[in-house]
Amino acid sequence: MIHLLIFVFMSYQLISNIQIKHFRSLHQQKFRKEQQQYLVEGVKNVEEWILEGADIEYVIAIKEWFDAYPHLLKEIDADKCLLISEKDLPRLSGMKNPNQVVLVVNITQSKKLSEIKSSNWSLMLDRVQDPGNLGTIIRTADWFGIENIICSNDTAEQYNPKVIQATMGSLLRVNCFYTDLPEFLKQNSNIPVYAALLDGSPLMEYNSFSPGLIVMGNESKGISEEVKALVQHRLFIPRIGKAESLNVAVATGIFCNALISKNS
Amino acid sequence: MIHLLIFVFMSYQLISNIQIKHFRSLHQQKFRKEQQQYLVEGVKNVEEWILEGADIEYVIAIKEWFDAYPHLLKEIDADKCLLISEKDLPRLSGMKNPNQVVLVVNITQSKKLSEIKSSNWSLMLDRVQDPGNLGTIIRTADWFGIENIICSNDTAEQYNPKVIQATMGSLLRVNCFYTDLPEFLKQNSNIPVYAALLDGSPLMEYNSFSPGLIVMGNESKGISEEVKALVQHRLFIPRIGKAESLNVAVATGIFCNALISKNS
Repeated sequence: MIHLLIFVFMSYQLISNIQIKHFRSLHQQKFRKEQQQYLVEGVKNVEEWILEGADIEYVIAIKEWFDAYPHLLKEIDADKCLLISEKDLPRLSGMKNPNQVVLVVNITQSKKLSEIKSSNWSLMLDRVQDPGNLGTIIRTADWFGIENIICSNDTAEQYNPKVIQATMGSLLRVNCFYTDLPEFLKQNSNIPVYAALLDGSPLMEYNSFSPGLIVMGNESKGISEEVKALVQHRLFIPRIGKAESLNVAVATGIFCNALISKNS
Repeated sequence: MIHLLIFVFMSYQLISNIQIKHFRSLHQQKFRKEQQQYLVEGVKNVEEWILEGADIEYVIAIKEWFDAYPHLLKEIDADKCLLISEKDLPRLSGMKNPNQVVLVVNITQSKKLSEIKSSNWSLMLDRVQDPGNLGTIIRTADWFGIENIICSNDTAEQYNPKVIQATMGSLLRVNCFYTDLPEFLKQNSNIPVYAALLDGSPLMEYNSFSPGLIVMGNESKGISEEVKALVQHRLFIPRIGKAESLNVAVATGIFCNALISKNS
């Protein structure tokens, strides 16, 4: 009896030096803007991005990753897959311990700011500058079913690698728009605006909410005067102890839970 | 007429090379444990630590800092102040952009775990591993007047520089105890135990709380089976969107606000 064993070798093209240098530039905001692409790193994040149907330009990975995750590659053309050596991976990666695989993703924003409806809850971020905080806020928004975040132009950029790291895939389900906040609020005065302000009413005593915008401010300076003047519902999280302030992502979670869970 | 100008020069001893090497070792947990000391960096944190009356062994700063903050040094002996050159500061600092001043602080824990009262709210952390998350949780606890956090032995160490950075001074007002959690719960079965578990009741519908322990679990694995078995009040934060989970510090904030603000 003759046993016939057939091995199918899938061989991917090796990444070039020029490509490494080119994609590596995407660690900088300037080049992300120019190329309209960003990087996603790490086995878990990459899985989330592929399964969620992100617009992927390249999957760049070491052989072990291609061998271990063939099911993730079903929908991805072989010419979008580039092999990288373990030695070269740190040249492309921005992580201290590079993690097998890097995606080059095309920036696609199908939704427009003008489509934001007053019937849904949205977040508004006024100068949130720490990318880790922005990432955690995007993940929190995704938990509470918030699809849109309206950011001031000086809020951290959504495609910053530290934001991507902290969003855990939620970035693909939440739209971040960057705009002039006072201008937006003046043009959308029909949308209720809620914010954490020291002279507000205790959050837990507040009971009737129509969906609207929840405004969160800068880590140390809070909400700007121009935005503050346009807030209709001034609320605060009662402080029992002595901390000077709450982390902005924690405060966002508390507001979302109190306003949205109560209504749903 | 003769004008007499008197300048008072306060000159501090210059730090030695041996001292830099010695204090620098405190960036490692092993040496913090051995020396029972830890470092605090950054102008704002240092101010918090001094004003809160921490047990300070040394204030190590560049001349500009000593000149700018004489009021912070009123209670500190001159022989505890060491001058460091701007050139040498990065050798001592763990920060990318070293920030004028570093404190060497003595670890003092006056409170004992056995003093925890069932009449106060406390937090229990089961394997929270990210130091940034632990720091943010300590700051959140301080906001809600929680004085004690009971940590599993494998939770991040409270004196890790990244914890210090995220606590914003709250570390001095909140005690972290490290112990075997199932053992502690068995010995203190009179204390009500609340936790976020998928099969729980919605947090916002839950109304009567006696103060107790709020348990938070590991970032990816959640609460361990042994601890889970000892939870009396199973609760959950309703998920409206699609995020797989909430950040553990955000979830802690939501629990504290819902359980503690409602009762106070």
